Amino acid sequence: MKYSQLFGKTSKTKIGGSDLISHQYLTRGGFIAESVAGRYFFLPLGWRVHEKIKAIIAEEMNAAGAQEMITPVLHPLELWQETNRTNTTGFELMQVTDRRGGKFALGGTAEEMMVDVVRKFQHTYKDLPFNIYQFSTKFRDEARARGGLLRVREFTMKDAYSFHPNEENFKLEYQKMSEVYHRIFERLGLKTLKVEADNGYIGGEYCHEFQVVHPKGEGRFFVSEDNKYVSHEDIATFQLKPINPEETPAKIEFIEQPKWVKTMEDNQKNYQKPAQFFLKNVVYRSEQGDIIIVTIRGDLEVNKIKLERVLNLVGQLEEATVEDLTAIGTQPGYVHSWGHKFVTPRKAASENRDCRVIYVADYSLKTVTNFIGGQKEETTDSINVNYGRDFTHEIEADVALAQDGFLSPDGSSVLREERGIEVGNIFQLGYHYSNLMKNATFIDSDGKAKPYYMGCYGIGLGRTMATIVEKHHDDAGIIWPKTIAPFAVHLISLNGAEEVAQEVYDYLINNNVEVLWDDRSESAGRKFADADLLGMPNRLVVSPRNERRVEYKARQSQESVVLSKEEALEKIVYG
Amino acid sequence: MKYSQLFGKTSKTKIGGSDLISHQYLTRGGFIAESVAGRYFFLPLGWRVHEKIKAIIAEEMNAAGAQEMITPVLHPLELWQETNRTNTTGFELMQVTDRRGGKFALGGTAEEMMVDVVRKFQHTYKDLPFNIYQFSTKFRDEARARGGLLRVREFTMKDAYSFHPNEENFKLEYQKMSEVYHRIFERLGLKTLKVEADNGYIGGEYCHEFQVVHPKGEGRFFVSEDNKYVSHEDIATFQLKPINPEETPAKIEFIEQPKWVKTMEDNQKNYQKPAQFFLKNVVYRSEQGDIIIVTIRGDLEVNKIKLERVLNLVGQLEEATVEDLTAIGTQPGYVHSWGHKFVTPRKAASENRDCRVIYVADYSLKTVTNFIGGQKEETTDSINVNYGRDFTHEIEADVALAQDGFLSPDGSSVLREERGIEVGNIFQLGYHYSNLMKNATFIDSDGKAKPYYMGCYGIGLGRTMATIVEKHHDDAGIIWPKTIAPFAVHLISLNGAEEVAQEVYDYLINNNVEVLWDDRSESAGRKFADADLLGMPNRLVVSPRNERRVEYKARQSQESVVLSKEEALEKIVYG
Repeated sequence: MKYSQLFGKTSKTKIGGSDLISHQYLTRGGFIAESVAGRYFFLPLGWRVHEKIKAIIAEEMNAAGAQEMITPVLHPLELWQETNRTNTTGFELMQVTDRRGGKFALGGTAEEMMVDVVRKFQHTYKDLPFNIYQFSTKFRDEARARGGLLRVREFTMKDAYSFHPNEENFKLEYQKMSEVYHRIFERLGLKTLKVEADNGYIGGEYCHEFQVVHPKGEGRFFVSEDNKYVSHEDIATFQLKPINPEETPAKIEFIEQPKWVKTMEDNQKNYQKPAQFFLKNVVYRSEQGDIIIVTIRGDLEVNKIKLERVLNLVGQLEEATVEDLTAIGTQPGYVHSWGHKFVTPRKAASENRDCRVIYVADYSLKTVTNFIGGQKEETTDSINVNYGRDFTHEIEADVALAQDGFLSPDGSSVLREERGIEVGNIFQLGYHYSNLMKNATFIDSDGKAKPYYMGCYGIGLGRTMATIVEKHHDDAGIIWPKTIAPFAVHLISLNGAEEVAQEVYDYLINNNVEVLWDDRSESAGRKFADADLLGMPNRLVVSPRNERRVEYKARQSQESVVLSKEEALEKIVYG
Repeated sequence: MKYSQLFGKTSKTKIGGSDLISHQYLTRGGFIAESVAGRYFFLPLGWRVHEKIKAIIAEEMNAAGAQEMITPVLHPLELWQETNRTNTTGFELMQVTDRRGGKFALGGTAEEMMVDVVRKFQHTYKDLPFNIYQFSTKFRDEARARGGLLRVREFTMKDAYSFHPNEENFKLEYQKMSEVYHRIFERLGLKTLKVEADNGYIGGEYCHEFQVVHPKGEGRFFVSEDNKYVSHEDIATFQLKPINPEETPAKIEFIEQPKWVKTMEDNQKNYQKPAQFFLKNVVYRSEQGDIIIVTIRGDLEVNKIKLERVLNLVGQLEEATVEDLTAIGTQPGYVHSWGHKFVTPRKAASENRDCRVIYVADYSLKTVTNFIGGQKEETTDSINVNYGRDFTHEIEADVALAQDGFLSPDGSSVLREERGIEVGNIFQLGYHYSNLMKNATFIDSDGKAKPYYMGCYGIGLGRTMATIVEKHHDDAGIIWPKTIAPFAVHLISLNGAEEVAQEVYDYLINNNVEVLWDDRSESAGRKFADADLLGMPNRLVVSPRNERRVEYKARQSQESVVLSKEEALEKIVYG
């Protein structure tokens, strides 16, 4: 294609709203254009990349036996009500009402729709398993768009859903999809880490994210030095070692303490001991109004996601306010590790009962003998406090946040904190949807109707495209992997070489090579700069100086060679 | 692919809601499944057809130099407000508000979005023309869905938009697209008629529909016997010949008339003359409240669409009520061809003025000498009334509805009424959008900013797919054209022939033939019936009787032959 005829031009102007290099290069290169925040046009050049990514995903999914189909974009809202997801999606569901009063959700994910179409058919165990997928527009009413394609409000997602007779059968597909994903991303030029993660709003018990390590990624996860353990921050665990096993429990005492001792730092200064020897209490309030007090070792932080999962209150905890503390007779800095109750009873938000104060003990409490703290007042505190002897909580669990340098769960390695971009994910859904939705059953070999065991598998195409740019570029522009470059060749004709350029162009096209020919009457400098920005893997320059020969340069290389067009073709095809 | 693993099964049950054969076969064949009325899942088999149709359209559009891209599904509502289309789309626009209060339309067509992205770039005349297109989901809040894919509320549309420096340049593209459309539909197995049509809600001055003749189509149009004239009913014209040119005008008279003469039929009976000799008055009311009286020859009907265009009141006319007639001092059956005024002044709905009575004369009034009627009272009427002598209207125009058997506009042929399914359309938009939207300009060769001259071009993919089934089927099922059949071959293995079937299957797959292998343990009868319903162009049967040979039958043929697999391959590939 001739560049002069291409819709979408390059621009030298820095784009506002985001300093992500993918946003800069994709916009300035004329691959994408913003409609409104978080919603993008894909211009012809960008759409070519998008569709090549799509083709690779489809090829690998089909090879794995998955079948492409499509669901309507508008989902009957009653389906989302059937699974109680209208208010618990984790993202704001966009809704629309038609002229007949019909209510619809704009598809965010399609579990309900897929279960709905599957239950229209009378399947038996012989029809299972199957994996059906689609490429369709997904809507997320994000509070904040990031600029560029990394976090948007509308995007094409490949979402696949598999249906199985049982968990054993599902696990084969889960493993297969994991391998398919690695292969897809490898073909796209992305090295991914499979990160165990929180299942979040999708339902089900476990899932894995495919993360591309990147300092500006929104995902935080931990990788053990031996690469055996890869886990999202939300659920990462680590090994706790006893801090002072040689010490013997002393008698608990309530002692005087200077009035200036208020914070954890003051404590450390006053007692000349590191944070791990102090008890820390962190307070939350649930949607019902219950107060949750987590007691944890002073050097650790509470992981709210883990805590919510332990309490089965996913998405329902908030930090307690000063009013909450007052309601249980205390104030910031003086929460006790035992004994708080509501001063006057408080009614639960929607349940017919009084609110409770729930104490949770992090496992770290068992690693220290003779804690300081637990009943701190303005001028006194308790010392030699021992968990299990002086106080015990009704719930004991791992609710601590992992940190860089901690021991891996099996203790054999050290955890490294990483940031990454999540380009795909695979989810175990189990019976979550098939139990909530009526008639989502098949007839098993014993003649009985049983719910489907399910999994789902997603890839965001625009985010993947941006991530490829994040990983493949230099100071001058994009360096597209050959598999998805919009054109294989960027042909530049300098003044006076138009005729030879036409010959080379025709020759390459006739040999099935995709060529973008910059045929404009721009300066050589401008053309070279645009070629670097657009990032085709192979650059050819024809100029009167080289007569009928062409100057070949790989995008990522600094060196060029002058070749015949036949030699250039060989370079392009065989690398 | 093995049929046992295909998601989506055949069904023998007749589908309710529509007797369209395409709906029956596509649903019963497991190609599509209804979500809610007017919204469909495309199951894997149906999606294969859909995507093959898409590939053919894309191939032809690309070959014609058009460039594929994509716009967001959600269009900022302010763009639709910029062109005053929020209330005048001709379809109910679906709207949605996001959590930040941003208002969006669910894309029905994308003129505004395309102009919006184009105006982000500083184009000069050198960048023109270009034609950009997309395949994207379109939403129409139709009051009535038809059942099946012919009239739905959500569908994939190929919509293309071309931008030109002037009308001359546009006309080349309009002609090119017309040829591209014929070629596309030909490749899809559809014979289309290019029908001149009403531009409707899109704006612009003229357009053409691509209609496939079908008795259940919603489009009505006229074709001249010599095929030179093809025009939609809404705008079809015809030649009027003088009815009684030999007669000379007589003196107008006001005569007695029996009281029983009320209707046109009564008139014909009483005067023993055909309807064409009588004056007919048809009354409408505009949105502003004006009364429009159309006087037309008694044998003709008023074409409301034509009338609205003449008056520049598209979509704004309704039949007058009894109250309207009372307001101008008359009643049904006694409207005069002259002289009506408002008895008491009426205010226009939103304009600061009094309503008016507007008389329109159809050209047919000039074809009769000595009309009867014009001032009919209960017991009197006028005769020998001559237009231009006894009365003249302020507006004279062609506002008559064409009818089967009328003369073509040039008088050389006769019009035949046809019904058809509109599978595509091409529109001249002219300056409609570029004038309404700010900065929709390019820099012309004279250095001046000028608005783009535009056209647009649409094809509905689902409707095209259903139309193909409407035209290609028999009593047993679909007969897919080879170009878009989901699989080239339907392979049936009868009991005991599984091994040979596997061999044939592998052989064909290795020769790049798409095969659906019915490997189920169903009866031969069930398998043959399903093969007919699903409609692959080639059927192969392997059975123990034929040992290693296969029985070949083309779907549309009654005869089968027994061949080696190599011979079968040749049949399949070379027909």
